[in-house]
Amino acid sequence: MTEKPLVRRSPVEMRHCNLARSFELIGDRWTLLILRSALYGVRRFDDFQADIDIPRSVLSNRLAGLAETGIMELREYREEGQRARVEYPLTPMGRALGLPFFAMTEWGDTWLGEPPSPYQLRSKSSGERFTTALVDEHGKVAKTGDVETVIDPAYTKRKARRRE
Amino acid sequence: MTEKPLVRRSPVEMRHCNLARSFELIGDRWTLLILRSALYGVRRFDDFQADIDIPRSVLSNRLAGLAETGIMELREYREEGQRARVEYPLTPMGRALGLPFFAMTEWGDTWLGEPPSPYQLRSKSSGERFTTALVDEHGKVAKTGDVETVIDPAYTKRKARRRE
Repeated sequence: MTEKPLVRRSPVEMRHCNLARSFELIGDRWTLLILRSALYGVRRFDDFQADIDIPRSVLSNRLAGLAETGIMELREYREEGQRARVEYPLTPMGRALGLPFFAMTEWGDTWLGEPPSPYQLRSKSSGERFTTALVDEHGKVAKTGDVETVIDPAYTKRKARRRE
Repeated sequence: MTEKPLVRRSPVEMRHCNLARSFELIGDRWTLLILRSALYGVRRFDDFQADIDIPRSVLSNRLAGLAETGIMELREYREEGQRARVEYPLTPMGRALGLPFFAMTEWGDTWLGEPPSPYQLRSKSSGERFTTALVDEHGKVAKTGDVETVIDPAYTKRKARRRE
C-alpha cells in the first residue's frame, strides 16, 4: 500500500459515519474487553468480573449500556438452591461483532504478539485456517492494488444539498 | 449462529490475548476516532482537530501515544512562508488497521445505519463491491456452520506448565 494523498477532512462526516457511530457505542476499553469475553462465551456478572478484573460498578454500568443498545439481552437463570440471577448473552447484533473483533485479533497477532496466535478459527470440514479478507460479490479475494474507496454519490449529493 | 455454551473464563488470558492487547493500545474513543480520520488520509494536527472536534491537549496526547507504539510516525513538513510543522502519517502497522476498521464499519452499516452505507470499497477492475469475510488457505469463503474456534495446543500446554 502506498501512502494516501493528504486529506483535510473525512469524506463522511462523523454523524453519518457508521464507524464513528460504532465507536460511540462500544469504543471504550472496558466495553471492548467485556465484548471480547462475551464473544468467547462468558455471560454472567461474576464471570465477567473475574475474567477481566473490572470494578463491579463499571461492569454493571457497561452491561446496562450494552443491553440498552441491543448488543446483549438480559435473561434470568437460577442455579439449584440459589436465588434467580440475570445473565447477559449476546444478541445477533452482538454476535455479529465476531468478524471485526477477529480481524482486530489478527492485527494484534501480526503487530503485537509473538506468533503463533493462541486463538485460531478453522474449518470443521477441511481443518484449514481461516483469516479475514476483502472478497468481491463472487467471493473472490481482493488483489492488492485493486481496492478503491467510493463515497456513495447519493451521500455526497445529500451533503451538498444541506450546505446550500 | 447458535448460542455458545456457557464459558466461565476466556480460554486465552488477557495478557496473552492479542485482541485485549490491541484494545489496551487503541481502545479508547478518541484514539479510535483519530485512527478513523487517519485511515481516510488526514494527517495534520489542525485537520484532526477540526475533523473530530477533539480537545487539543487530548489530541496531542493521543498522537504522541500512537507515534510511540509505532502506529503513526512524526514527519516534518513546511508550507510556503510558514514555520516547519509535524504531521502524523500512518505507518504500515497503522495502515493495517484498515481491514478491522472496515469490518467494524460494515457492522455499523448493518446494525446502526440506514442503508446504503456512504463508505464503500470497490474493485478498480470490475467495479464489484468488497465486503469482509473469513476465507480459508485457498481463498474460499467460509460456509456458515463450518467455523470452529481452536486454541493453539502449544498455548494451552504453556498455560498448564505455568500453573504446576
